[in-house]
Amino acid sequence: MKRIAVLTSGGDAPGMNAAIRSVVRLALSRGIAVTGVRHGYQGLMAGDFVAMDSASVGGIIEEGGTILRTARSEAFATDEGQSRAMAALRQAGLEAVVVIGGNGSQHGALALHRRGIPVVGVPSTIDNDLRGTDMSIGADTALNTVVQAIDHIRDTAESHERTFIVETMGRNCGWLALNAALATGADVVLIPEVPRDLAAVAETVRTRRRMQKAHTIIVIAEGAGDAVTIARTVSELSGIEVRVTVLGHIQRGGAPTAFDRILASRLAAAATDALLGGQSGVMMGLRGNEIVPVPLEVAVAGIRQVNLQLYQLEGIFSI
Amino acid sequence: MKRIAVLTSGGDAPGMNAAIRSVVRLALSRGIAVTGVRHGYQGLMAGDFVAMDSASVGGIIEEGGTILRTARSEAFATDEGQSRAMAALRQAGLEAVVVIGGNGSQHGALALHRRGIPVVGVPSTIDNDLRGTDMSIGADTALNTVVQAIDHIRDTAESHERTFIVETMGRNCGWLALNAALATGADVVLIPEVPRDLAAVAETVRTRRRMQKAHTIIVIAEGAGDAVTIARTVSELSGIEVRVTVLGHIQRGGAPTAFDRILASRLAAAATDALLGGQSGVMMGLRGNEIVPVPLEVAVAGIRQVNLQLYQLEGIFSI
Amino acid sequence: MKRIAVLTSGGDAPGMNAAIRSVVRLALSRGIAVTGVRHGYQGLMAGDFVAMDSASVGGIIEEGGTILRTARSEAFATDEGQSRAMAALRQAGLEAVVVIGGNGSQHGALALHRRGIPVVGVPSTIDNDLRGTDMSIGADTALNTVVQAIDHIRDTAESHERTFIVETMGRNCGWLALNAALATGADVVLIPEVPRDLAAVAETVRTRRRMQKAHTIIVIAEGAGDAVTIARTVSELSGIEVRVTVLGHIQRGGAPTAFDRILASRLAAAATDALLGGQSGVMMGLRGNEIVPVPLEVAVAGIRQVNLQLYQLEGIFSI
Amino acid sequence: MKRIAVLTSGGDAPGMNAAIRSVVRLALSRGIAVTGVRHGYQGLMAGDFVAMDSASVGGIIEEGGTILRTARSEAFATDEGQSRAMAALRQAGLEAVVVIGGNGSQHGALALHRRGIPVVGVPSTIDNDLRGTDMSIGADTALNTVVQAIDHIRDTAESHERTFIVETMGRNCGWLALNAALATGADVVLIPEVPRDLAAVAETVRTRRRMQKAHTIIVIAEGAGDAVTIARTVSELSGIEVRVTVLGHIQRGGAPTAFDRILASRLAAAATDALLGGQSGVMMGLRGNEIVPVPLEVAVAGIRQVNLQLYQLEGIFSI
Repeated sequence: MKRIAVLTSGGDAPGMNAAIRSVVRLALSRGIAVTGVRHGYQGLMAGDFVAMDSASVGGIIEEGGTILRTARSEAFATDEGQSRAMAALRQAGLEAVVVIGGNGSQHGALALHRRGIPVVGVPSTIDNDLRGTDMSIGADTALNTVVQAIDHIRDTAESHERTFIVETMGRNCGWLALNAALATGADVVLIPEVPRDLAAVAETVRTRRRMQKAHTIIVIAEGAGDAVTIARTVSELSGIEVRVTVLGHIQRGGAPTAFDRILASRLAAAATDALLGGQSGVMMGLRGNEIVPVPLEVAVAGIRQVNLQLYQLEGIFSI
Repeated sequence: MKRIAVLTSGGDAPGMNAAIRSVVRLALSRGIAVTGVRHGYQGLMAGDFVAMDSASVGGIIEEGGTILRTARSEAFATDEGQSRAMAALRQAGLEAVVVIGGNGSQHGALALHRRGIPVVGVPSTIDNDLRGTDMSIGADTALNTVVQAIDHIRDTAESHERTFIVETMGRNCGWLALNAALATGADVVLIPEVPRDLAAVAETVRTRRRMQKAHTIIVIAEGAGDAVTIARTVSELSGIEVRVTVLGHIQRGGAPTAFDRILASRLAAAATDALLGGQSGVMMGLRGNEIVPVPLEVAVAGIRQVNLQLYQLEGIFSI
Repeated sequence: MKRIAVLTSGGDAPGMNAAIRSVVRLALSRGIAVTGVRHGYQGLMAGDFVAMDSASVGGIIEEGGTILRTARSEAFATDEGQSRAMAALRQAGLEAVVVIGGNGSQHGALALHRRGIPVVGVPSTIDNDLRGTDMSIGADTALNTVVQAIDHIRDTAESHERTFIVETMGRNCGWLALNAALATGADVVLIPEVPRDLAAVAETVRTRRRMQKAHTIIVIAEGAGDAVTIARTVSELSGIEVRVTVLGHIQRGGAPTAFDRILASRLAAAATDALLGGQSGVMMGLRGNEIVPVPLEVAVAGIRQVNLQLYQLEGIFSI
Repeated sequence: MKRIAVLTSGGDAPGMNAAIRSVVRLALSRGIAVTGVRHGYQGLMAGDFVAMDSASVGGIIEEGGTILRTARSEAFATDEGQSRAMAALRQAGLEAVVVIGGNGSQHGALALHRRGIPVVGVPSTIDNDLRGTDMSIGADTALNTVVQAIDHIRDTAESHERTFIVETMGRNCGWLALNAALATGADVVLIPEVPRDLAAVAETVRTRRRMQKAHTIIVIAEGAGDAVTIARTVSELSGIEVRVTVLGHIQRGGAPTAFDRILASRLAAAATDALLGGQSGVMMGLRGNEIVPVPLEVAVAGIRQVNLQLYQLEGIFSI
């Protein structure tokens, strides 16, 4: 193998740049050249390629986003799109691909692998919903961003003795909301994995007011329902005004935490070495302290389960 | 004078605690006792008072929010409400009041002053819309919070080459949005003080896409119009998708910046000394480097003008 | 069991407060009362006790340091000191102890256990040098503090094209320095676990200058030698000026990261439940994603090994 | 005028990049080309020049350090050095210079001006010791960095009930130390502008211990004496152990605050317009809210005075 490609795809996540740097520098140290694919699968189909040297990834380890850009592509889901991508890879002499991204991106990686080109995935999504890895790149940074945002909102909630609903990202996975609730000592958390009982939530809000703990923080995963509708219901049931803050896109960006920089460096290095060692069709995952290969079929089969012991702990602490 | 009161009112702002600490410690150093009023004017009417000693304000200089709590009160706007407040003050032997808050709070301070009790105001609002002071407590912290949030969003905007509208607080004043746009190198800023031209905004979005500067950040003050409506219009006119992030309540909280801690300490100390020196009916303001008294009538007469030279500068830089 | 004690001991670490909160709230939810011991083992010998209720741990999850205070005690290492501690526990009706701290503290926990009182340890040290747990409370926060500090120093190193040595804490363990070096893309790292070769370091400094990568960042664990002496040697061997920054006590404090708040909550809850379930003489550790008991003898037998694969990776990336 | 030069010199400061961006974009908007001088006066003598366009300053407003690099140059202080610089400017067709830097840099600017080339200075130094401006670029960011560092150290000081001396930068000026002490509620501050009384400091340390405020934070400006020697003296006089943290180079770097980004943008734009308007031999300064020209002779004549009212306030608050 002489030259491999690397791309970032799907939603951007802090640490993607550290992963790109790791692929480039590790491959160069093994005598392999690296080509960057711009704009994810869209750029792969279009042959939007750029040669990467060691200097091209200097100073990016601490930067959020992705220097290779990213995109979501519907065309790549089609047979024609994938054929165009394969042709572009062949034409550029690219013999293997490292795919950095979340669930949709790893689906794409699997499609390429099935067409015969060696592909290894690197899990990267702030939702942390990928199977086969304890943590995906970007999740730790996003969690800290959410925690700092809720710490801010609590200042106002306490000062005004108000009830706030804070909506986090996470798609259909409650990881981000649950961990943020636990880390901020939130009073209630609603996640897709646990059926919700808004009457009980309203009762908590009322009880806290009676106990002179006048403010209440409710964290909701975006997959657990519409924050505005839930706020209205809780407000009607409790008779207490409820305000909503949707954290939105501030959750994606920012300098990656130490954890994400190191995780990205390790996973991407392992992915590159796996490709050079002849592997394909796998995603490198973190299991405990080890980096292990996971079949892409497993990684994309549904979403990761959250640790429901944390949900119980959150309930105990917020009494 | 033997005992004065201090209260925080209206929206909470980072630095209010530093101001409370300053009133308490400065008064004590002058041999004057201090009583804290909880929950702003609502607590003033209800006699919700707490004695403050030096230790009661220990360790709060770095905390957001307000340990005295705050509230918005409609009852205090009435003659009856103000009479109740006066009675409560008399009964508790409170001879003067320091009022820490924004526009509505200083209106209340003026009402008390007119009823004959010495009152001095301390400007505190993240909107920075108060006349008679260059800066209000909390504005610098909120500005830095907004700037960090936009720095985050830019990571995603660049990576996905998208157009984002970010809505800041500020009520009818563009200070927060304008300064945030200048500090983040945003491409467009819409503030209440300048008539908006959405066709020109759409043209900027289109032009930037043509110039391969594929992403655009538009900052909107909440007083400049509804972000979602504006996004729809710009999107229709430009043919380019526009996403909206409303920063919301994260803008209020957090540890105050050095500037806000020092400003709060200086303004509140000056307000306390002004009361002890026999002044009333004024708000202490920052003018250049000096702390000066401003008649409350002046402070609450309309909103502060923003520096439109900054608006022009923002336009030049974003070319 | 009706009443248990909790203490923090040794160097403070961010997350200790989250651990205290977890012990108190979990125990209360199980119908068990909690007494806080102030000033670590010193307070234990002196009977410096304070009853804890749910409100006493409100709002502390986000605070660095420890509300129970901490101390290092030589007297407790003696037979007489331990006897006094046992007497104080008996007299106060305290039937078991949760010990939150690092290596020395867990040694103390083992001594108490051997005298017959149930004791469970919670690992907490920014050095992350304790055996039997993948991570100790405070290590993730300290690592992020170090990473941010090095990110700052790199701005200056790049701007002035200088060589900097940055010394981290870590006692005899290189975990903090190694992970910080990897996360910041430092050019050289010196840790106690790997023999150092200052001639090679000087050669790296010289080579980088020749390659127009004019600045060099060298991270040193405090256990790897004296930073000033090493700087002098590298400077003499390379002919290039080397500056030293000793990060010092900024590494201990600050609001805990999300990871440390959650880890502290989980470990301390597990420790409390272990005590209630009849266990003693163990420390709760993180192994992969699980919380597991580790015999105290194992936890304190020497220091944890660092992952030398990370050392190799650091070498590859800094080429 | 068709082409101007811009350089950064002396110690780097956060906001220098925002100033460079401002010079480039404002000049371009006026139809003037800009050349960057690399490595300060050293590069000026060597003709180390780079053409700047709008894109060359894209994305740098939020970055610490300086993309033009900086250096301290002794050769430029000589007649020969200055002659070489003048020749290099002439040869490259550079008709005027914007000099971004501190005291030494503005001395250099004055020398160039006296040799007949138009020069305008932009004050930039974290020490904030330049006359003729209320604030220099970088000072607000450095102050916030110091404040956060002391907030960290206080966690440990409180937890261990210890006495800490924290040394800040500032050269012969106490601005940084004094403002940091005020903003963190430090107990003692030592600055070059006020004669020190270590017996009184020791008495404060002893008194606080007696009053059960067991910890003490002492902030020292580097110009106020050697921290280690002072610590030894205070320790001997008080009988209480005193620890020292020298904050060092973390004070220089990091993303600039909103204030520094805006100040840099305004000062550098005004400097560029002043050059285009025919001015020379001045530095643009902030006076209150206005940007005003100050003769370079005035700016470099000694160091700025600190506001000693803040010193008195600090004394009152720390009682």
